[in-house]
Amino acid sequence: MSTITTLPVVGMTCGHCVAAVTEELQQLAGVTGVAVELHPGGASEVRVHSEEPVPVEALAAAIDEAGYELAS
Amino acid sequence: MSTITTLPVVGMTCGHCVAAVTEELQQLAGVTGVAVELHPGGASEVRVHSEEPVPVEALAAAIDEAGYELAS
Repeated sequence: MSTITTLPVVGMTCGHCVAAVTEELQQLAGVTGVAVELHPGGASEVRVHSEEPVPVEALAAAIDEAGYELAS
Repeated sequence: MSTITTLPVVGMTCGHCVAAVTEELQQLAGVTGVAVELHPGGASEVRVHSEEPVPVEALAAAIDEAGYELAS
């Protein structure tokens, strides 16, 4: 089942941030693609494509590892 | 002669940008250190330490290579 999970992520300001988040998420098992709509100063929209649903906790951990966090 | 050249650079928004600019500038002959005071949304202050003065054109080219430009 193809799944897209959309997450609001704060603190991303530039293409380097997009690259950092994308790199971490792509390392997760089952993730087939990552798309980011960058909103500097607000919450960026991170879309994670996967074959099966990936636990949000795993996605949040990867985003944290990249140095960012989910919008509360 | 120890020299510090201060340059206003626009477009730098985060620590990744600081790292990119620092890395390019440190590759220039004679550069002994780089310090950046980040001002997202405005001109960041980039200070280049060198033993001898480094031509501003060379500094500007390195900053351009990193993907940023001097404030006009």
